[in-house]
Amino acid sequence: MKIIETISAMQSAADEIRLSRKTIGVVPTMGYLHKGHLSLIKVARENADIVIVTIFVNPTQFAPHEDFNSYPRDISRDTQLAEMAGVDILFIPSSNEMYPSDFLTTINVKHLESKLEGESRPGHFQGVATIVAILFNITKPHVAIFGQKDAQQAIVIKRMVQDLNFDIKIIVAPTVRESDGLAMSSRNTYLSPIERSESAVLFAALKEAEYLIKNGMKNCLTIKENMSKLILSKKSAAIDYISIANPITLDEYEILEKSQLVLISLAVRLGKTRLIDNILINI
Amino acid sequence: MKIIETISAMQSAADEIRLSRKTIGVVPTMGYLHKGHLSLIKVARENADIVIVTIFVNPTQFAPHEDFNSYPRDISRDTQLAEMAGVDILFIPSSNEMYPSDFLTTINVKHLESKLEGESRPGHFQGVATIVAILFNITKPHVAIFGQKDAQQAIVIKRMVQDLNFDIKIIVAPTVRESDGLAMSSRNTYLSPIERSESAVLFAALKEAEYLIKNGMKNCLTIKENMSKLILSKKSAAIDYISIANPITLDEYEILEKSQLVLISLAVRLGKTRLIDNILINI
Repeated sequence: MKIIETISAMQSAADEIRLSRKTIGVVPTMGYLHKGHLSLIKVARENADIVIVTIFVNPTQFAPHEDFNSYPRDISRDTQLAEMAGVDILFIPSSNEMYPSDFLTTINVKHLESKLEGESRPGHFQGVATIVAILFNITKPHVAIFGQKDAQQAIVIKRMVQDLNFDIKIIVAPTVRESDGLAMSSRNTYLSPIERSESAVLFAALKEAEYLIKNGMKNCLTIKENMSKLILSKKSAAIDYISIANPITLDEYEILEKSQLVLISLAVRLGKTRLIDNILINI
Repeated sequence: MKIIETISAMQSAADEIRLSRKTIGVVPTMGYLHKGHLSLIKVARENADIVIVTIFVNPTQFAPHEDFNSYPRDISRDTQLAEMAGVDILFIPSSNEMYPSDFLTTINVKHLESKLEGESRPGHFQGVATIVAILFNITKPHVAIFGQKDAQQAIVIKRMVQDLNFDIKIIVAPTVRESDGLAMSSRNTYLSPIERSESAVLFAALKEAEYLIKNGMKNCLTIKENMSKLILSKKSAAIDYISIANPITLDEYEILEKSQLVLISLAVRLGKTRLIDNILINI
């Protein structure tokens, strides 16, 4: 596995790979790799000749009061895991090179960026869209893999890729879960033992919604109330949002209809830790 | 010369050229080609193996009250001129394919986009930055040529290319002028005979500023007053702005100093027609 730390070296390496008629798959990450990332790497392997993993804790997608400084980092462990997972190139750029002091450019995906996560985290998706475009221009992939766990991120990125005509196929890979259903996330390390045990309620609430819908419940308010009740039965839990929405426009549904594709998503705080999860169901 | 009208066909053609280890030079235009465009095509020829010219009158860089509908168009003449100039591929996309109804993405280059032209034409550079990024992702060039006549456009695009790490060399080619100094522009066709004759005053005012500066004048207000007096001696002329600024940050200078690079630019209305021009001088 090759480790590349500068933008120009990464662009040259990508050019060489393309000229040798091999395809590039990229998995953009903020590091602190877990089984979720490893599954994305596996999908990249299945869809491209050469797999690039990028590790960059992107400051512009954190709001000032958020956890940029405390976000978990362990480059030597990440390097080992990436090597074992069969990654070809690990790209680890510096913040100074990615955001020089005269940096001025931003990418926005209107409407989509201001709902759900965007409402709770203003500026988040501007940061995400901008850094993803930058990483695309540096790694020059044919295919890029993102996780379904960050559903809105995938939706925003797909819209940006289509609008700006990046010639890149976006694959959204299924969420990987702990045995009790908790979605894998680098932020799970923040949880105390009690919070960790109560955190299974996020997925339980999503499954409860799926169960109600499969049994004919159509009223989204009622479904959300059931989910809310379940979540709030856990002492450490506070609800940021629960959403039942169209997975392309993110417009909220009120009454569900047959053959709709529905994104049920939520953000819940367990103590000081904010976690998100979602499921996509076809009615 | 090949004419391509769809995005996917253009991307495939660009991929093939790149795989054959040839370089691509692109000249993005809004059509109605004139000698200024032909000089950009010549520079592209000198700097790349294959020259792509794009023709697209981009609606998003016109404000609602501006001349989008009346902007001159003549595709058959453009096709002949491009062929004669040795263009390899003419890319003429449709507005429907470039901006489908669910289009949501914008690119902004903060500060730079809101000065000078941006102050007179709100939203203009958001439209420019976004369409140029789209055209880059479709034509996949190694080098792109822009004209010095649209100085701020070139500055905004260079900043975007650097920030987003597009692996593309930007070349800014000198302004081509009529014999009386008027900068070539598709909008010159709007001028009445009297306005056309008075329009030489834009370049005359820039040369006056250069003369004053070369003779030791350091006070920008005084220089601007001299330019203004000259321009307003023409009956059809009204001044939109006159600027003496740093050509990277576009910050206005008050007192000039030795070895400064200075962008002197102006926008002037002749009747209903708004023209711009500039010179870059090294003190």
